[in-house]
Amino acid sequence: MDRIFFIAVLVGVPLTIAGSFLHWSSILMFIICALTVVALSGFMGRATESLAIVMGPRIGGLLNATFGNAVELIIAIFSLKAGLVGVVLASLTGSVLGNLLLVCGLSFFLGGIKFKRQKFNVYDARHNSGLLIFAVVVAFVIPEIFSMKMTEQETLSLSIGISIIMILLYLAGLFFKLVTHRGVYITNNEERQKEEEEPEWSKKKAIIVLVLSTLAVAYVSENLVHTFEAVGTKFGWTELFIGVIIVAIVGNAAEHASALIMAVKNKMDVAIEIAIGSTLQVAMFVAPLLVLISLFMTTKMPLVFTIPELVAMVTAVFLAIMVTNDGESNWFEGITLIAAYLIMGIGFYLL
Amino acid sequence: MDRIFFIAVLVGVPLTIAGSFLHWSSILMFIICALTVVALSGFMGRATESLAIVMGPRIGGLLNATFGNAVELIIAIFSLKAGLVGVVLASLTGSVLGNLLLVCGLSFFLGGIKFKRQKFNVYDARHNSGLLIFAVVVAFVIPEIFSMKMTEQETLSLSIGISIIMILLYLAGLFFKLVTHRGVYITNNEERQKEEEEPEWSKKKAIIVLVLSTLAVAYVSENLVHTFEAVGTKFGWTELFIGVIIVAIVGNAAEHASALIMAVKNKMDVAIEIAIGSTLQVAMFVAPLLVLISLFMTTKMPLVFTIPELVAMVTAVFLAIMVTNDGESNWFEGITLIAAYLIMGIGFYLL
Amino acid sequence: MDRIFFIAVLVGVPLTIAGSFLHWSSILMFIICALTVVALSGFMGRATESLAIVMGPRIGGLLNATFGNAVELIIAIFSLKAGLVGVVLASLTGSVLGNLLLVCGLSFFLGGIKFKRQKFNVYDARHNSGLLIFAVVVAFVIPEIFSMKMTEQETLSLSIGISIIMILLYLAGLFFKLVTHRGVYITNNEERQKEEEEPEWSKKKAIIVLVLSTLAVAYVSENLVHTFEAVGTKFGWTELFIGVIIVAIVGNAAEHASALIMAVKNKMDVAIEIAIGSTLQVAMFVAPLLVLISLFMTTKMPLVFTIPELVAMVTAVFLAIMVTNDGESNWFEGITLIAAYLIMGIGFYLL
Repeated sequence: MDRIFFIAVLVGVPLTIAGSFLHWSSILMFIICALTVVALSGFMGRATESLAIVMGPRIGGLLNATFGNAVELIIAIFSLKAGLVGVVLASLTGSVLGNLLLVCGLSFFLGGIKFKRQKFNVYDARHNSGLLIFAVVVAFVIPEIFSMKMTEQETLSLSIGISIIMILLYLAGLFFKLVTHRGVYITNNEERQKEEEEPEWSKKKAIIVLVLSTLAVAYVSENLVHTFEAVGTKFGWTELFIGVIIVAIVGNAAEHASALIMAVKNKMDVAIEIAIGSTLQVAMFVAPLLVLISLFMTTKMPLVFTIPELVAMVTAVFLAIMVTNDGESNWFEGITLIAAYLIMGIGFYLL
Repeated sequence: MDRIFFIAVLVGVPLTIAGSFLHWSSILMFIICALTVVALSGFMGRATESLAIVMGPRIGGLLNATFGNAVELIIAIFSLKAGLVGVVLASLTGSVLGNLLLVCGLSFFLGGIKFKRQKFNVYDARHNSGLLIFAVVVAFVIPEIFSMKMTEQETLSLSIGISIIMILLYLAGLFFKLVTHRGVYITNNEERQKEEEEPEWSKKKAIIVLVLSTLAVAYVSENLVHTFEAVGTKFGWTELFIGVIIVAIVGNAAEHASALIMAVKNKMDVAIEIAIGSTLQVAMFVAPLLVLISLFMTTKMPLVFTIPELVAMVTAVFLAIMVTNDGESNWFEGITLIAAYLIMGIGFYLL
Repeated sequence: MDRIFFIAVLVGVPLTIAGSFLHWSSILMFIICALTVVALSGFMGRATESLAIVMGPRIGGLLNATFGNAVELIIAIFSLKAGLVGVVLASLTGSVLGNLLLVCGLSFFLGGIKFKRQKFNVYDARHNSGLLIFAVVVAFVIPEIFSMKMTEQETLSLSIGISIIMILLYLAGLFFKLVTHRGVYITNNEERQKEEEEPEWSKKKAIIVLVLSTLAVAYVSENLVHTFEAVGTKFGWTELFIGVIIVAIVGNAAEHASALIMAVKNKMDVAIEIAIGSTLQVAMFVAPLLVLISLFMTTKMPLVFTIPELVAMVTAVFLAIMVTNDGESNWFEGITLIAAYLIMGIGFYLL
């Protein structure tokens, strides 16, 4: 597995460079870039994790919580630069839906086939549920509805205000989890079986890998973004479908894989932390950060999704909360989430 | 009670036949047909139950879960045949609202007057809550919102896709409950006091009653459907009100009665299983099945409710979940649900 | 503190009288009246509480539950008389948002800084959650959506029907809490540490204070209401912002203060009872009562909020339920609620 990733990177990056100079067809470039990004993001993930272990739980938690969706952020920045605001909002939507429904769903399903009932920390689940409601149901819905009677400038002001509040609350949440209430909410059946974790790579190696793969991701992402239009017209995919389904899967693939592995190992706490933690990071950190970054670009991005995107996210949040809030999972809860993802996928495809 | 039902059937069916040949007034026919259907559906319910006991828990559960709303399905098919798509969607809405708010509400209220606190299986309640969110909040809301920007053909494609997914998930849910996780989620205070149940009728008698009463229901329903228009204009009732309130009550009356009897006997688990189980059956099985059946008719039925219908169902689901999710009930929770039903009833009446 | 209030009343009422005769500037009158109302409502609160203790728990509970929001009711009646239906609906919205998000939020935050985890009665929390869903998600949303296809007269009929049902359910809820299920839902860690409470004032004094301060509030409120228009144009505040933020804070300030004091004393049960009890009182008693009162005035008030108001209330309800439903709080849950209030505040300011 590791070796495959390694080869993919070694081959993918040169191919991307070659292709961009030789003007290969968009479809080919799309496939090369997408696979290379997936492989690279696997490296970034491993480097971040190694660094996190070396740096101790607090700074490590901070690193994970800010670098965890770096690939998505990078792709989104290049999309913003290309003026593709619609694709960015769609890919944020796709991340939320993909993590909440597809990754949680597959984790519950695969884990549930092996284990009859899987338990996870119910306090964390409720903490996350509160933030999901805050981020998606309050902070995303309010600008959507209010902007209907606002000028463009007012909408942007509201978006900026909300973005700043969200980022501050996200940081406060980290402070809460890593500092003031660290280890306060532990359930009996946990007892933190955390065997002393060993970092995979040394601090130096991790930093080098992180820097190099980030640069490579940036380069490849820029090429990837420019294939969207051609690929869309070729396959009859809308901008919305590309963003919600394709970009979201490419940007999160590596992460998704590790969640599934944890679920099958019955480490459901970790699987959920990856899936829902990543959702919250996208909604409360990446999305508002992109709003603020867009202020320095030619096309500003207000925090206003399309109605279908918003409705899909809100309903996904309610379903995910209902399913996770008891601190238990089974295979049927898994396919319920997957079924919801399929329904939304069909919807975005046809839209 | 039994005898009254028996007489109602013996008198009702001939009267319907006579009336349809002699062209009696619509109002009279409406009353005769409605009462006869209620009586017949009582027989169908008893036959299904007897068969279910004879056939053992698995096939029995399957029988209950597919035949439980046969009357509704039959009325709906004849309404579809008559091109009354609006009435069908309204009657589905009415079933959901009636079961969730009126039947649950009356069960909680009547049971709660006798017993201070009534408990029921909290795991089942949560399982059902997840499916309610899936069916009503995801699977009904998505086509509603997405269809606003879709062509008629795309809406129908989406409806078909969703319908297939819902039926498959419903069947998977039965597999989960009857096979892989049978008896896994039992709470202490239950200990399944299920005395060995005795079937009321022999297998042979049950099958005969089931076949005969199904045929009779079909015949009477067809006559019932054709009175709607005239009754509507006579009483000033809209198609919506007839579907949501009248058809829903006629189609579910027998079932409703048994839920209330169970509640007063303090068998709240059974009462809830009837009310919420029936809601899920309508939403996840009958509704999508009707979408698929409508493909073979002249008027196709997309899974798109009117906005008031959808909002009523979604808010009812949230209220019912909030009230049932702690595994306890009392009289006040009962009248809260009934009050919500009244509010919606007034709304549909005035609309 | 007490003395400040006393002086504020002694000075505020004469100043209001003087100002209204001498036609002082609207801004000045707005400030004088607002502060005087806050001081007076403090007296009314203390008088109500003393009376409640003297009269015993049942009549006392009834007194609190009907007189608790008397100030708001009085301001609203004068606004209705002045034809400011928009301000009334906005101030009801503001009360709901202010109590659910700002008061609960500040209570959780200030209490949470002193105590790591604060607990409160989980049964009461769920009881309240059910009613919040009933009142805001069902009874406020249904007329909003249904009225879109209704005539003005039908909308008013629906509003009247819903209002009567809500008031009856509110009274039934009091009967449930004070009579049939009094003391049934007590959690272990409570054991009702209620030391025998001593009334602050004698029955006679309490009644005199209550009558006098109610009269004074009425007089000052009428003057306050007439400054809204001028203040709005002066500061560039919309009618909506004045209602949602300013009137709501003035009308509830005294109450808010006592909730915070209780939270810091770790009496979280009382703090929540004030904040959420007051929300329910506004939504289920004050709002429908105003609809009925408006029938005797020239401008009738249907129970139809603006879309932004309704969406803000509904999302606030979901957030508050998610945060309170586990019977525990901490500082982070507090700032989550405050952050939601800020977002909505910005929205209403920009609207």
